[in-house]
Amino acid sequence: MSVDAKTVKTLRDKTGAGMMDCKKALAETGGDMEKAILYLREKGIASASKKSGRATKEGRITTYIHPGDKLGVMLEVNCETDFVAKGEQFIEFTRDIALHIAAAAPSYLSRDDIPGDVLEQERSIYRTQALNEGKPENIVDKIVEGRISKFAAEVCLLDQPFVKDDKIKISDFIKNGIATFGENISIARFARFKVGE
Amino acid sequence: MSVDAKTVKTLRDKTGAGMMDCKKALAETGGDMEKAILYLREKGIASASKKSGRATKEGRITTYIHPGDKLGVMLEVNCETDFVAKGEQFIEFTRDIALHIAAAAPSYLSRDDIPGDVLEQERSIYRTQALNEGKPENIVDKIVEGRISKFAAEVCLLDQPFVKDDKIKISDFIKNGIATFGENISIARFARFKVGE
Repeated sequence: MSVDAKTVKTLRDKTGAGMMDCKKALAETGGDMEKAILYLREKGIASASKKSGRATKEGRITTYIHPGDKLGVMLEVNCETDFVAKGEQFIEFTRDIALHIAAAAPSYLSRDDIPGDVLEQERSIYRTQALNEGKPENIVDKIVEGRISKFAAEVCLLDQPFVKDDKIKISDFIKNGIATFGENISIARFARFKVGE
Repeated sequence: MSVDAKTVKTLRDKTGAGMMDCKKALAETGGDMEKAILYLREKGIASASKKSGRATKEGRITTYIHPGDKLGVMLEVNCETDFVAKGEQFIEFTRDIALHIAAAAPSYLSRDDIPGDVLEQERSIYRTQALNEGKPENIVDKIVEGRISKFAAEVCLLDQPFVKDDKIKISDFIKNGIATFGENISIARFARFKVGE
């Protein structure tokens, strides 16, 4: 089997192994990247902790520590060029999001990140609530979905109303940023630590 | 069923519900805290996003951003008193750990945090490696466990050699801190973000 040079290069970047070893690994595994990595590791050629180290996106890491040092936020915001990432206006933009996270304490980035069992438990609680309130069975499902949306607006960063301007959601703030900076912008991830929480 | 005042207070702190509601919820659920919270939520009395907000530990959040803003670290270090947490020497101590995390890129805090499936895959790789190297079957298990320890020293913060003094592990650096500050000290959690990784 012949292996194209680009795939070999990717495997070299990912594992730090030599070109001939990478070629052989890909040939033996039918060009499957994950299997080729495993092959190299089983041969003792690639090590576990070698990281690709090659960032495929631009962006910046921004942190915020609340006075008193008991609450901290860190987030990664991606954009398309280092030029935008290093601009003062973009830095301000990411700081606003960090301050929002400190104040609004989201648990998840987007609705897709809410674990299935959490959603199930919320649904079950809202169903019981609605029935306790004497709502007719045939509209309970609609009420439950409405309350799930409200729940998402409380716990998901992108669905939360922006603390600096509660007429828009964080997802709108991002959209405004895309228009302002003329590049695709997204929040990759965030962490919020409070001492003892 | 009678409910003691301390339990009622804890439930009030956790849910923000009134005292009579909390008493009733605990009575109805046999004093089970989790069930009582669920009960209050089903009655529409407690909301989902109410946090206890009561920190039970002291400590501080420390961040480090590598020049260029592409790599960031945040960690929570706990101690016993706010007096120690606010001291300049303790701040330096946590900064050293943040710098270590930036450089050494641990994936987990301790060996207990390595997911079971990751450990299983590593074991299977090391077994195949050892057999490929022609090691006799009867010593393969020992070799595998030795390599798992090496793996833990690569990926677990507490097992990593300290970058500022590689003769000691981070767990030893913490032990030294406990002796220096005269309080129990522990790393509660950390995050390390690199753009595009």
